[in-house]
Amino acid sequence: MNLMFISNEDRADQWRDNLTALLPDLNFYVWPDDQAVDPATIDYVLAWKPAPGIIKRFPNLKAILSLGAGIDGITCDPELPIDKPLVHLVDRSLTQGMVQFALYWVLHFHRQMGTYQKFAEARTWRQLPQAEVDACRVGILGFGELGQAVGSALAAQHFDVAGWSRSPKQIAGITSYAGAEALPGFLGRSDMLICLLPLTPETEGIIDAALLAALPRGAIVINLARGRHLVDADLLAALDSGHLSAAVLDVFYNEPLAAEHPFWAHEKVTVTPHIAALTSPRSGADSVAANIERIERGETPLNLIDLARGY
Amino acid sequence: MNLMFISNEDRADQWRDNLTALLPDLNFYVWPDDQAVDPATIDYVLAWKPAPGIIKRFPNLKAILSLGAGIDGITCDPELPIDKPLVHLVDRSLTQGMVQFALYWVLHFHRQMGTYQKFAEARTWRQLPQAEVDACRVGILGFGELGQAVGSALAAQHFDVAGWSRSPKQIAGITSYAGAEALPGFLGRSDMLICLLPLTPETEGIIDAALLAALPRGAIVINLARGRHLVDADLLAALDSGHLSAAVLDVFYNEPLAAEHPFWAHEKVTVTPHIAALTSPRSGADSVAANIERIERGETPLNLIDLARGY
Repeated sequence: MNLMFISNEDRADQWRDNLTALLPDLNFYVWPDDQAVDPATIDYVLAWKPAPGIIKRFPNLKAILSLGAGIDGITCDPELPIDKPLVHLVDRSLTQGMVQFALYWVLHFHRQMGTYQKFAEARTWRQLPQAEVDACRVGILGFGELGQAVGSALAAQHFDVAGWSRSPKQIAGITSYAGAEALPGFLGRSDMLICLLPLTPETEGIIDAALLAALPRGAIVINLARGRHLVDADLLAALDSGHLSAAVLDVFYNEPLAAEHPFWAHEKVTVTPHIAALTSPRSGADSVAANIERIERGETPLNLIDLARGY
Repeated sequence: MNLMFISNEDRADQWRDNLTALLPDLNFYVWPDDQAVDPATIDYVLAWKPAPGIIKRFPNLKAILSLGAGIDGITCDPELPIDKPLVHLVDRSLTQGMVQFALYWVLHFHRQMGTYQKFAEARTWRQLPQAEVDACRVGILGFGELGQAVGSALAAQHFDVAGWSRSPKQIAGITSYAGAEALPGFLGRSDMLICLLPLTPETEGIIDAALLAALPRGAIVINLARGRHLVDADLLAALDSGHLSAAVLDVFYNEPLAAEHPFWAHEKVTVTPHIAALTSPRSGADSVAANIERIERGETPLNLIDLARGY
């Protein structure tokens, strides 16, 4: 089989080493170094943010494989051939990273670690009343693969977890809210809101003034999905009015976040540089290789995207 | 039954409400307010750090119940009647708190959150290489009730966990090291060392220069047990030499930690005011009431202490 790797953000050498170790018959080509290869012989592209029009140059693709858990790095190509199977990456290492990052920040706020850090800087020995963990209500906005993994880990730590998604989900110990009509009820019980939605035309800008107003007073917003889910000015207004008590933002409308953006210096905002979860070529290659083997055997690939739905 | 509550650090009113709701026949007395009650009628003391000699005033005790997970707040009484059953508190809320606090700090260092905080203060967008979670070796020094709960939670998050205790333990997914001869091997593989030992004459001062020298270079020490496990000067020397990269200390030789203690200002030390895990009268009362019921039925109480062993 022949695979063309197309990404400026991922390490081609690491993906080559890991994938060819699993698939000895695979010829691993890298764009643009290997652009002299006959495009008709390429069976797979493994890509993130290819320049528009590149993917359609390969007429005989068996599948388009995203290097990301999302597919917005593929569907951003307006000339994408939509008749080809499109597969997103389910990487156990990425899932673990997202779970750990979410768990860390929920524990940070639940255990008042920021306040204790300030006490320590002032050499102040002071114990705060500690709320019971099962009184802390966490809401997972976007209850797919990653959202369910994060929700289950928080429920295992005894938080009161609910998830919101377009269609209902059955996850042990977690309340599932589904559809637009259930959104206000879900938001009204989310002391901490974690966004793990896919980015689609329907979810772009979803975290706006109206959504934030539906959260309980003092709520915390943690955005681990995409910067374009959030209306920056609406978040700042809700923090400044006192309606929200804090925000953790790992993703931004434009990345890297510009040095002059007000998020950096806002005392209620924590900025992290899109590091909640990173794809690992080691574990990611397991998932990509297993899917290529399925397709070669004539089976339907796992983690196939429904382009009509957008995720 | 008649119970005498003796503590300056716990809320008598909350314990009274929760215990008498579970045990309607219980007469709940509080020392010293109720010192006029005939001491011969008292069946139980529920205590933490009673003044020396108080417990022995009650000649007919069926058991001495500690308000702490440790019993050093009981055995500090040199006149303690050692012929009475002594029971330590296993409180699910305290266990959950300890697990969450340990998990938070392990994630903090594994995910380099302190460095990202400094980057954010400098408005610097920079992604660091991220080590795989299963390459991060955590060692639990003291592998009893709390140590096993912490270890299991970390193993569930894919950390490479080992536990050290006096006798071998069988816990799924965790390597058990037992006895003095196994200690060097355990320490040599502990990138992060979490102390959850009971305080006994054998464990007092155990975290000294020799123990710290046996850790890998760059190791992190997290003490959640008792301040007297640690030789403060040896820890500072190991941090200053660069052998250790960080320490989190929740417990201290003298509490509150004095404002002039060097731990407060040391850039590699995080001080928290003994808040890793707090006993909850709500959940703790469940455990105390169940044990009183066992004793009243003539059964052996759970969580009985072996005073010869010291835990």
